[in-house]
Amino acid sequence: MENLATLTGKYGDEGDQLVFKVLNSGDYLKKVSWEDLKAGYQPTLCKVSEKGLRYDLTVPFARYVVMNRNDITFPFKRFQIQPVWRADRPQRGRYREFYQCDADVVGTDSLLCEAEIIVMIRRVFSDLKLNDYSIKLNNRKILIGVSEAIGEKGNESTLCVAIDKLDKIGWEKVKEELAERGFSVESIEKLVPLVNLETDLEGKLSFLKEFLCSSEIGLQGVRELEEVFALLNGMGEPLDFVNFDIMLARGLSYYTGAIFEVKVNHVSIGSVSGGGRYDNLTGVFGLSGVSGVGFSFGVDRLYDVLEELDLFPDDSIQSTKILLTHFDQSAFVYALGLMKKFRAAGIKAELYPDLTKMKKQLDFASKKSIPFVGICGDSEIEANLIAFKNLETGAQESIPIEEAIERLK
Amino acid sequence: MENLATLTGKYGDEGDQLVFKVLNSGDYLKKVSWEDLKAGYQPTLCKVSEKGLRYDLTVPFARYVVMNRNDITFPFKRFQIQPVWRADRPQRGRYREFYQCDADVVGTDSLLCEAEIIVMIRRVFSDLKLNDYSIKLNNRKILIGVSEAIGEKGNESTLCVAIDKLDKIGWEKVKEELAERGFSVESIEKLVPLVNLETDLEGKLSFLKEFLCSSEIGLQGVRELEEVFALLNGMGEPLDFVNFDIMLARGLSYYTGAIFEVKVNHVSIGSVSGGGRYDNLTGVFGLSGVSGVGFSFGVDRLYDVLEELDLFPDDSIQSTKILLTHFDQSAFVYALGLMKKFRAAGIKAELYPDLTKMKKQLDFASKKSIPFVGICGDSEIEANLIAFKNLETGAQESIPIEEAIERLK
Repeated sequence: MENLATLTGKYGDEGDQLVFKVLNSGDYLKKVSWEDLKAGYQPTLCKVSEKGLRYDLTVPFARYVVMNRNDITFPFKRFQIQPVWRADRPQRGRYREFYQCDADVVGTDSLLCEAEIIVMIRRVFSDLKLNDYSIKLNNRKILIGVSEAIGEKGNESTLCVAIDKLDKIGWEKVKEELAERGFSVESIEKLVPLVNLETDLEGKLSFLKEFLCSSEIGLQGVRELEEVFALLNGMGEPLDFVNFDIMLARGLSYYTGAIFEVKVNHVSIGSVSGGGRYDNLTGVFGLSGVSGVGFSFGVDRLYDVLEELDLFPDDSIQSTKILLTHFDQSAFVYALGLMKKFRAAGIKAELYPDLTKMKKQLDFASKKSIPFVGICGDSEIEANLIAFKNLETGAQESIPIEEAIERLK
Repeated sequence: MENLATLTGKYGDEGDQLVFKVLNSGDYLKKVSWEDLKAGYQPTLCKVSEKGLRYDLTVPFARYVVMNRNDITFPFKRFQIQPVWRADRPQRGRYREFYQCDADVVGTDSLLCEAEIIVMIRRVFSDLKLNDYSIKLNNRKILIGVSEAIGEKGNESTLCVAIDKLDKIGWEKVKEELAERGFSVESIEKLVPLVNLETDLEGKLSFLKEFLCSSEIGLQGVRELEEVFALLNGMGEPLDFVNFDIMLARGLSYYTGAIFEVKVNHVSIGSVSGGGRYDNLTGVFGLSGVSGVGFSFGVDRLYDVLEELDLFPDDSIQSTKILLTHFDQSAFVYALGLMKKFRAAGIKAELYPDLTKMKKQLDFASKKSIPFVGICGDSEIEANLIAFKNLETGAQESIPIEEAIERLK
């Protein structure tokens, strides 16, 4: 939960509407006048609600950095995993309450941080056994330069918002939107070679050095991009998994340098994370000159992707190794003592809590994917043994508890 | 976030007021009439807000169990760590947004679950190195029995709410409250031997068997309590850390059997967790006959306690093992290659991202409790070495990177 003032105005008009507002406690109407009410819900909003739910983790992080600037050692790195909320129509891959996992570095403009973020994404995806994905990389300075080079200096926001939709709506619709928003026919025409550019990294870079030759900021963007690749190279990372995409724009407006996006290939909802460099995010909270770069994983989307690709390990739903079962109260007490021994040996053991039919206890074990069952009957109790059953093979043997422990280790 | 209807009416009148309400999106006043507004904020509440923030994890869990009852294998165990919100005046140990960690078992009335919860608390506290604490245990059936035995049958809620404050306000005030709420002088007088009872477990049990001899439910509570102790004994747990406290009542009203509370001794905010058995929590959601028992850790309070007792391990703030520093661009590139080697060997290494004074880089390392620094100067680069500095002792030596890796392992 944040003060609404912290969140408002940071995510654009649409974002402001998608922030969930928390009603003031008690008589929430006490500050509202009849005149306010006659004017509708907008003028009353700030009087009935002063708090909102996090829309992302970046803005609250910027607020945190500013509030704690005297206690923080810069450059400051942090990761944060927390729920965020958006008052959107829920659908697959788009939830009203979902978890983000963010990693940011603030207080340095070193491009090493950009390279480190790319390395981090690779490590995370490798640990998740996600191999078929692509990291798209671009730089807002290049987009500013493109805007200048086509004769639309200062209109880079319009350009970014439009080409951000290129994947979804196609070039013809993007052209229409740019025209509607005042881009001249000549400017739009000059974009065509960029949109159609199909070449490798070297080809793109040399094309851009030519295309942006009149834009100092555009060339600066190209140099930054080259340096990120050089740093990755110096860290021994292969470069072919990073796709320099001149048409990557990212909607949110606070990015000023590198921008990233990660898509998992061949799944229904592929875009699982994105990020970029922001030069002045803390500025709105009164601390300027703090550059940062960050990245956000959509945890729920990653979960969906792992599920779609069947990448959750089989044993991720398996916890208990052995379920101890019993026929009556005295067997229950016997099993209780066995449970203690299994647990003391570090084996996850569970005792079926109710006195009930053996079939029900065995059903429970198989539904919970518990691989082994220890059956405590009269003969086992008498001989101080356990009937050790492998639920997968069906094999069953009466053995001493020490041997059961050995087999489970 | 939950539907408000799920939360309302579950926590008493005070709880209902402490639930944070989320304002409906868009024109939140559209369902509100002028008549509603004239009547004040209460009649409009349900028209401007239909969602609320979790007040605890138990009620949302009950809602989950009912919604998923056909996919769940009972007895069902789950743990859950999530934030909850209370619209309370914030103060030390009492936050508006805080984390709870809950563990519950539903779908069985076996007292093994009560014993398992006590064992779990012990394991958690032992892992946290918290040794000086006490687990208070009582049973709501005993309190119902006490109510009957003193001649106030059916008034156990009043009794529980009053004696719940015994620790805070003392017996005289509790007496006053009971009298105000209609308890007769004779009934209150009959409580005195219980309030003053100071004896061991056996003494308490035999006193209660006498005191509750006319109350079937009261004696049932005593038997349940005895069985929990017997089960703990059968699991090899020492019994002296569980304190049977006849005056433990717990405020919340849905408990029907065992109730627990854990206090850490000799700290300012000691009560860090509590729980109990509820026989009909899912009933309000249309699924009756599902008994459960659960427990909740207040994570933020545990954090405060660990901090007060200085129990966070020293290395919990230490992450990076070695910071690589440099004097210029070529040393930066050299250090980049070294970082790769350290990381490949599994050693957490960081490269200072900016070209700046060595003093600033060393300050960064010491502020971040990074124990070792690798300095890359011209002579080291030439000889393919690293100046390996121990920040604690100040010792510094130029050695090959392989040796530095060995020393850090």
